[in-house]
Amino acid sequence: MQPLVTHHRTAPPTVDGGRLLRRVEELGNIGRDPATGGITREGYSPADREARAYVVEEARAAGLTVSVDAAGNIFIRAQPAGAAADRPALLMGSHLDTVVGGGRLDGAYGVLAALEVVQACAEFAAESRYEPMAVAFTNEEGALFPQPFFGASVLSGRLADLPREPLDHNGRSLRGPLALAGGDLYSLGSAVWPAESVAAYLELHIEQGPVLERTGNRIGVVNGITGRTVLTVEIHGMAGHAGTVPMAGRCDALAAASRAVLAVERIASERDLCRVATVGRLVIHPNSPNTIADRVRLTVDLRDTVASRMDKAETALRQELRNVARQTGAEIEVVARTHSGPVSTNADLRALIEESCLKLGVPYESLPSGAGHDAQVVADIAPVAMIFVPSIGGASHVPHEDTDPADLVVGAEVLLHTALTAAGVRTTR
Amino acid sequence: MQPLVTHHRTAPPTVDGGRLLRRVEELGNIGRDPATGGITREGYSPADREARAYVVEEARAAGLTVSVDAAGNIFIRAQPAGAAADRPALLMGSHLDTVVGGGRLDGAYGVLAALEVVQACAEFAAESRYEPMAVAFTNEEGALFPQPFFGASVLSGRLADLPREPLDHNGRSLRGPLALAGGDLYSLGSAVWPAESVAAYLELHIEQGPVLERTGNRIGVVNGITGRTVLTVEIHGMAGHAGTVPMAGRCDALAAASRAVLAVERIASERDLCRVATVGRLVIHPNSPNTIADRVRLTVDLRDTVASRMDKAETALRQELRNVARQTGAEIEVVARTHSGPVSTNADLRALIEESCLKLGVPYESLPSGAGHDAQVVADIAPVAMIFVPSIGGASHVPHEDTDPADLVVGAEVLLHTALTAAGVRTTR
Repeated sequence: MQPLVTHHRTAPPTVDGGRLLRRVEELGNIGRDPATGGITREGYSPADREARAYVVEEARAAGLTVSVDAAGNIFIRAQPAGAAADRPALLMGSHLDTVVGGGRLDGAYGVLAALEVVQACAEFAAESRYEPMAVAFTNEEGALFPQPFFGASVLSGRLADLPREPLDHNGRSLRGPLALAGGDLYSLGSAVWPAESVAAYLELHIEQGPVLERTGNRIGVVNGITGRTVLTVEIHGMAGHAGTVPMAGRCDALAAASRAVLAVERIASERDLCRVATVGRLVIHPNSPNTIADRVRLTVDLRDTVASRMDKAETALRQELRNVARQTGAEIEVVARTHSGPVSTNADLRALIEESCLKLGVPYESLPSGAGHDAQVVADIAPVAMIFVPSIGGASHVPHEDTDPADLVVGAEVLLHTALTAAGVRTTR
Repeated sequence: MQPLVTHHRTAPPTVDGGRLLRRVEELGNIGRDPATGGITREGYSPADREARAYVVEEARAAGLTVSVDAAGNIFIRAQPAGAAADRPALLMGSHLDTVVGGGRLDGAYGVLAALEVVQACAEFAAESRYEPMAVAFTNEEGALFPQPFFGASVLSGRLADLPREPLDHNGRSLRGPLALAGGDLYSLGSAVWPAESVAAYLELHIEQGPVLERTGNRIGVVNGITGRTVLTVEIHGMAGHAGTVPMAGRCDALAAASRAVLAVERIASERDLCRVATVGRLVIHPNSPNTIADRVRLTVDLRDTVASRMDKAETALRQELRNVARQTGAEIEVVARTHSGPVSTNADLRALIEESCLKLGVPYESLPSGAGHDAQVVADIAPVAMIFVPSIGGASHVPHEDTDPADLVVGAEVLLHTALTAAGVRTTR
């Protein structure tokens, strides 16, 4: 078995908190709008490429080896360039791209912490069963090219047969931007990993919700990633002048939509059929103060960690929509549906994370992830686990998304300790 | 007493239906979008000025006299140019401007029918107590310059002290466009009519609602113009990720807004506190499928013909909004309010309209106007009445706004007969 690195130390590997926080800060200046503080690094955009270059440079300066696959995913390892993969990888990471006007931690923190862990292992002479490796997956958010989880999907073999050339919101092909990121749209097959090549995937991420802050725990051990069903619902009523059409003759699409919004809320709150249910977006036509709306399009977002509960919630919702249609006379139709099933995290990996917390004396709790993550896609080919750190105010996808710096360091320490055990690292002394 | 005109005939004046319909068609080609058929003649726009030129030309070709006041209002009379106003006017008319993408009848029909009546009177030798006069008021809709009822307001003395120079939606002053329409922003005082100078104002208009079509009556005798209260309501909740924030900790501004929309509907429907109540517009922030809305701005439109009912409805609505705030935890505030009181039409004029209908054998009914009209402003200085003809499908402010041509002619005939009696016309033979 090859030694991991050329440096040899006798102390066990530790996280360099100062280095991690410096990188978080430096990376957080890339794509930053000085006016709002919001970060905009849409996947494959110039700002995203600048962030990628930053991480590559930091890794190379640390003596690590960097490679980029056909999907643009960046891999960082201690092995010399060109060294064969002699062991399955213990993959750790997340993504560098953001939503428009997002924060500096979502994704980026997980990549930088994984880099820190690989660097710490490299600085520490060790043998290991699995090779610690950091990954920055491309286009997790899908902000510019609406193919979220793109890099993770290619790696997991989901996109072996690309049905058509991916286009951005302006109809521009992914080909050019992907090439600029070092990828190759026509060689995606080369970026697929065989299942046995990944021993495990660990993703450290901000919670993006308020649970840890409320309970006071510093680490969340993710027990599952919620499935998500998004229904696009169209409601057709009858337009009319707000002053001249008597109430009795109306078919107000916005009033029908309001009943639908409240029905969605009840599905998760009063009826507890799924964990969360949200209408975040209504598009109203003509949306004029003086005109009864004739058309509303709304999106319903249902999530749960249990597949059977998601099914039940969706069935109940469709029944509610039929009730609203009957009550109001509006025509209501589900015109589009996307669905991703819930994903379980691996129990053994969860146990290792909990052991790490106990060893480090860090209070933790088990909780589900309500947001989607690269881990749910990598779960197709490997056991996965996720570690959450608290989000201040539960905020995410906004400029003021933040986490206490001490929690950022603790999260990386838990990741490191978990990785050492999971990878089977043995000190050389 | 002066003879009205120089032509002398022995038959009583009649409407030339063919001429009226030709003019409706020709005017309806001005500002018309060939793709949608919608008419866009925002007040003081080039298309509006083209429509004004058309009407002026038709009137002059008919041997009538045209004058334009400082507000751009067009007056058409049979008196020779420069003749002193020796009698109070029997004013008839409406407006030529439209909303964006509106129809060809709203306003324009009333102006053309008034032109037809003045022309018919001029072709018929007669003496009269009051001088029949057609008027095309400027900028009734307020589509470009958000000062609706502008011309009628100037005439009625409401705008004697203009608080500031009126601006359009792009911040451009009214001065230039008004000058191009033959007016003068700095001489608006010259366009104010003393109360005794208007004997009465009659406005013929499409109903813009479905009532006449449903009952099968061909004429509506408007018993009052509804008052209108518009409240702008802001709802503040708490943004959050649709997947990560548990239902229990949410303050969803869109769910609160949905409760408000339904409360508004109940005010007029179940509770019958006012005739109609509508929310036609919601502005949602950030309006993203994946984010709990933190801010919604909505407009509430309440209307009734009875002032005390409007007060009661508004009080009840404000109480409902407080209830929603208490139930949901959202902050709800009424940030703006505009109000116009209901206006009664004149009972004597209404009786004359009904007599005309009976004489012509036209089925009619009494009904309120839910929309606003120039008549409600002229009512400040003169008795007013309105005559409605049916709107096909109740549609208005849309390209397919239409009325059966036979109804258009009947409406003009009722206007003519009412005008003859109201003006005290006596034949010369």
